[in-house]
Amino acid sequence: MNSQYQDLLNVLHDCALSCNHCFDACLGEENVEMMSGCIRLDRECADMCSYLEQAIMRNSPFISQLAIVCAEICEACAEECGKHNHDHCQRCAEACKKCSEACRAAA
Amino acid sequence: MNSQYQDLLNVLHDCALSCNHCFDACLGEENVEMMSGCIRLDRECADMCSYLEQAIMRNSPFISQLAIVCAEICEACAEECGKHNHDHCQRCAEACKKCSEACRAAA
Amino acid sequence: MNSQYQDLLNVLHDCALSCNHCFDACLGEENVEMMSGCIRLDRECADMCSYLEQAIMRNSPFISQLAIVCAEICEACAEECGKHNHDHCQRCAEACKKCSEACRAAA
Amino acid sequence: MNSQYQDLLNVLHDCALSCNHCFDACLGEENVEMMSGCIRLDRECADMCSYLEQAIMRNSPFISQLAIVCAEICEACAEECGKHNHDHCQRCAEACKKCSEACRAAA
Repeated sequence: MNSQYQDLLNVLHDCALSCNHCFDACLGEENVEMMSGCIRLDRECADMCSYLEQAIMRNSPFISQLAIVCAEICEACAEECGKHNHDHCQRCAEACKKCSEACRAAA
Repeated sequence: MNSQYQDLLNVLHDCALSCNHCFDACLGEENVEMMSGCIRLDRECADMCSYLEQAIMRNSPFISQLAIVCAEICEACAEECGKHNHDHCQRCAEACKKCSEACRAAA
Repeated sequence: MNSQYQDLLNVLHDCALSCNHCFDACLGEENVEMMSGCIRLDRECADMCSYLEQAIMRNSPFISQLAIVCAEICEACAEECGKHNHDHCQRCAEACKKCSEACRAAA
Repeated sequence: MNSQYQDLLNVLHDCALSCNHCFDACLGEENVEMMSGCIRLDRECADMCSYLEQAIMRNSPFISQLAIVCAEICEACAEECGKHNHDHCQRCAEACKKCSEACRAAA
């Protein structure tokens, strides 16, 4: 695997971790209804990052196309999570931004 | 594929559909915090049913072991969703019960 | 769920089933090395169809973008499977063609 | 997340990477039919490790049950890959052994 993809794997892994943690933490917040957009996008983003990770690992012929969609999902999740002050949301927004940039660079 | 697995595929598909629909609908309810357990288990159950579907389709050697775990997840989701009066929760609880029984029979 | 998506779900399910069955059957053929492209694309296509199924079920905001990628993967799998005379390959090629068209229409 | 699960995430990630790499490399070997058991189990094991990773990340209530099944799949993959002298098979067998032990410890 070339080093660009090795870096992308690490960024995707961190983004999936941040999104899944934010999903779990949002469900435990007091005002869950304010977090419904976050919860939905956290799942979208975690699932897509995890999917792209496996695609890269198996040397899929479709990495570029998947990375473009992943970048778009990361951007949407970063925008939504960035609106909330919870630490888990702010950390998630950062991880998503970094991941969308890495996906764009790889695509 | 033998007919038992064909029936199980149908039941798993219906359960994944009901859980994902309930996940989406719960996030749009007014009292989302009452639904947080439901939202969490809907994702667990939808993901596991979808995973087991693919395992059956590819003739995995591990169908029985996965079906046992899937049955347990379905039962937990049925119990939680059954507590709520929303139509999507009641329908989901029914689909999960049926699916847990089919998984136990196949395991 | 609108009826277009209901139809797409059925087509995706049939495509995932055909691809996974072809994956399993190709691994049991005598000349496995002739089938290596098929085996690889069967997995790509089954995984993507299964992923898109769940995205539709949960009312994902990214169905169109995912459907475009899914269509492309289905086309690649249809082309490769279409080269082989095994029944499972021919059936898979047919299911993939139908699925790519349904994905394009939904995107 | 407690440190036991952090370690398990790393081991699962490495196992999914090794299995997917072995899957890809086996499909490019000269005697693919000798590798058909390996190819099949590589997919089973990569998919399960990736699934369990996400379950841990989202604080799933079913980590123990999934870890037991994952351990069994890792053991089967380690046994099959261990029969082959290719570097990718030997590395995969090692990663699977380590992962099955970590899963048993966590379960």
